[in-house]
Amino acid sequence: MPDFAELVKTQVISSIQTSQFRWPLRIYYEDTDAGGMVYHSNYLKYFERARTEWLRHAGVNQQEMIRQHKVMFVMKSALVNYHLPARLDDELIVITDIEKAGRASMVFVQEAWRGDQCLVGGRFKIGCVHAETVRPCAIPSGILNAMQLK
Amino acid sequence: MPDFAELVKTQVISSIQTSQFRWPLRIYYEDTDAGGMVYHSNYLKYFERARTEWLRHAGVNQQEMIRQHKVMFVMKSALVNYHLPARLDDELIVITDIEKAGRASMVFVQEAWRGDQCLVGGRFKIGCVHAETVRPCAIPSGILNAMQLK
Amino acid sequence: MPDFAELVKTQVISSIQTSQFRWPLRIYYEDTDAGGMVYHSNYLKYFERARTEWLRHAGVNQQEMIRQHKVMFVMKSALVNYHLPARLDDELIVITDIEKAGRASMVFVQEAWRGDQCLVGGRFKIGCVHAETVRPCAIPSGILNAMQLK
Amino acid sequence: MPDFAELVKTQVISSIQTSQFRWPLRIYYEDTDAGGMVYHSNYLKYFERARTEWLRHAGVNQQEMIRQHKVMFVMKSALVNYHLPARLDDELIVITDIEKAGRASMVFVQEAWRGDQCLVGGRFKIGCVHAETVRPCAIPSGILNAMQLK
Repeated sequence: MPDFAELVKTQVISSIQTSQFRWPLRIYYEDTDAGGMVYHSNYLKYFERARTEWLRHAGVNQQEMIRQHKVMFVMKSALVNYHLPARLDDELIVITDIEKAGRASMVFVQEAWRGDQCLVGGRFKIGCVHAETVRPCAIPSGILNAMQLK
Repeated sequence: MPDFAELVKTQVISSIQTSQFRWPLRIYYEDTDAGGMVYHSNYLKYFERARTEWLRHAGVNQQEMIRQHKVMFVMKSALVNYHLPARLDDELIVITDIEKAGRASMVFVQEAWRGDQCLVGGRFKIGCVHAETVRPCAIPSGILNAMQLK
Repeated sequence: MPDFAELVKTQVISSIQTSQFRWPLRIYYEDTDAGGMVYHSNYLKYFERARTEWLRHAGVNQQEMIRQHKVMFVMKSALVNYHLPARLDDELIVITDIEKAGRASMVFVQEAWRGDQCLVGGRFKIGCVHAETVRPCAIPSGILNAMQLK
Repeated sequence: MPDFAELVKTQVISSIQTSQFRWPLRIYYEDTDAGGMVYHSNYLKYFERARTEWLRHAGVNQQEMIRQHKVMFVMKSALVNYHLPARLDDELIVITDIEKAGRASMVFVQEAWRGDQCLVGGRFKIGCVHAETVRPCAIPSGILNAMQLK
């Protein structure tokens, strides 16, 4: 795995050999709690940042999606396993992979790494919904294409 | 000052003798950082919770305001002084007072207390803006009345 | 289910008929995102607040636990299902139940309700670890007793 | 001002001509609220991230400071002026300048820019305190030197 400094230089490293997408981030005071570790719910923010950048990298702008298609992505279910704690000043790399892109939802598999240690892993089901009614609906085909072509 | 348990029982204590409004809150892990204290930006959330409850107590519903009057309140400026740190499990009471209600803005003076210690004090200028354009506009008279009658 | 106002009056309602523990909370601007709903990771904070109050109700003070027993609770895994979105000003009730209290971990089942709608449900495995090494260790027997006697 | 892409490439741009330190950041869903804008307290997080990177750039590691010198930095007062709202997906640049480095405290002047618009400006007084007692104390000379030499 390339080191953090390398990743930061380009911010977006999409390996040619694999479909994995890597996103670097730094742990600040805001991320930690009185236990001295990163507060557990914050990893969901990091995973969402990485999915957003994955989408942006695939050419999908979520605001455009709302304006143009009147749809948006919402969290349907999250499964998160905490192996080791991250701490202040740590440099993490979030690896993002799409496991499945269905008609109205998609499943992401993501991991937060520090060096060669996988700290936290997660599987997230994201649903496509009408922006107003929040009812499930099909992912617009242009967006589906972009995601599969990534 | 009434003790925390008393306050929690009623959640909203608006003293008859003074115009002060008291709102109790508890410090959880989510509020703290690796320094073992409440992370400094979180007090702005507590002050906003208390202003929201102050407005609710005065009969002002902010969502109604947007729907009916197409206006909303936004933060214009904040001055916050940190005297002493709050810690995990602390019971705080936020005192809220309105210093001035102008045509298009208002100024709140607020303090977060733990027992007889004032931990953090702040002065907040809140502006009224059009919900779409975010341009300053007059506070609707019904809302202004509610706030002054509090 | 008792209504929100009833719950707020006493803050802690532990039904005699069931082992369920109910904790009320209000949605503020800080909880929402630009999609107009509560940001998904925030429910993990609400569930943690409710577990903390559940423990406090059972007589377990987490800071005492660290000081006296040199152990603390950490999140091991979280499974969260999002059914319906909560919105600004919503009054939620978090229901907390313990499914299993093992030697070194416990499993909580929790749900966030708005009126008669279950918005979000979760299952959380919490581990007991040494406060310094973060290595798994047995839950102190006094604490285990308190939790089972709740 | 260099554009965002340029800044991101290097993450840390410390202009030779000026003492200003620039730190780029992106606005995600986690940063916004139901008003469609960045929630006001989040700017304090961005300013703290930028101060941390400013310190790191000057060779000051805050964890080392605690371990080696038993001191840490805490927020003493914050004055924040909100001019224009940031929104989802915005690319901001935080400019950080030190106005004064005293014996036991320092004053930072910071601004968050989007393109050529200054959205939010702030002045922050940071105090040096004993890590245990949280009492004010002198900034260690090595750290003071690093900051002035930046």
